[in-house]
Amino acid sequence: MAKRIITISREFGSGGRFIGEKVAKKLGITYYDKNIISEIAEKSGLSPKYIQESAELSPKKGLFAYALAGRDITGKSVEDMVYEAQRKVILELAEKESCVIIGRNADFILRDWNAVLNVFIHGDMPEKIQRIMDLHNVEEKEAVKMMADTDKRRMTNYNFYTDQKWGKASNYTLSLNSSQLGYDRCEAIIMECVK
Amino acid sequence: MAKRIITISREFGSGGRFIGEKVAKKLGITYYDKNIISEIAEKSGLSPKYIQESAELSPKKGLFAYALAGRDITGKSVEDMVYEAQRKVILELAEKESCVIIGRNADFILRDWNAVLNVFIHGDMPEKIQRIMDLHNVEEKEAVKMMADTDKRRMTNYNFYTDQKWGKASNYTLSLNSSQLGYDRCEAIIMECVK
Repeated sequence: MAKRIITISREFGSGGRFIGEKVAKKLGITYYDKNIISEIAEKSGLSPKYIQESAELSPKKGLFAYALAGRDITGKSVEDMVYEAQRKVILELAEKESCVIIGRNADFILRDWNAVLNVFIHGDMPEKIQRIMDLHNVEEKEAVKMMADTDKRRMTNYNFYTDQKWGKASNYTLSLNSSQLGYDRCEAIIMECVK
Repeated sequence: MAKRIITISREFGSGGRFIGEKVAKKLGITYYDKNIISEIAEKSGLSPKYIQESAELSPKKGLFAYALAGRDITGKSVEDMVYEAQRKVILELAEKESCVIIGRNADFILRDWNAVLNVFIHGDMPEKIQRIMDLHNVEEKEAVKMMADTDKRRMTNYNFYTDQKWGKASNYTLSLNSSQLGYDRCEAIIMECVK
């Protein structure tokens, strides 16, 4: 296989991370998710804890407030610094090796690259809610709230930094409903696309 | 194979119709596209010519004008009559047999059905433009115009009747970029999903 990058964007609870990890294992390539936090932290000069809590996620406020908030005299917010560090780390990873990268607007950051497969994993409410309840050991009401919050923050962050619409099919090479197709079939389809 | 409906929504020039036709042939099931126009015409009492020109396509005006235009005293426009007839025909087809249905908001019309695979085919500009130039024997400028017009009218029609966003990944089980994946691979992936 030539060098190959797979980016996986996903709705919260859709199993996108799980599917990405399985694909990476099957292809024998590196899987990048939380394990790039320390690199982003180093590049941005911010703490790993802060990166973990804020990278890829905008604050809980709307796009307009987000665009205006916390900008210093140069017009750069802390989120911009995180984003810039994240962008550099992702470009370096893609330069270095074949890999699967979860989230972090990697589809957009690598938009001018060849041999990048951009995948979006989404799902149906009942299955996503059940998965969140099981994984995070929470009640249904809390799961619904977690899902809505996380997806809203991911969407706001994506739309702000990419000027594209999060979850729009045309941003991705491939979009899959994991509830209807099942995780194994999603994995098989992604494998079919990197053959 | 149990009864199986595949709906294919597509960007103009993405080859979605072509892929749908090949899938239908391979599965040995009926392919519905322009061949349902006469049935829609019969149900709506409008001429086949009118249906051909307007079904699935809104007039060349924005959503707001569209929502207000040409409504009679019952609040029903001619487009509403076409849509209603189209909806009935699609529900009857799905009731009757396994089939592939191209466009016409069939994904939304059959949203409460089991065993429906909703596919969205999109593509990159250069490949779509080239395909339109070849198929319709037009220059690049005209191809770009045809594409923009047709997709805008499909989108307006879809958004108006479904209250969903045309081309949003979560409306479909599966969305594929045919320029990046190739028509054969798109076909193979759809076949993988109906196994």
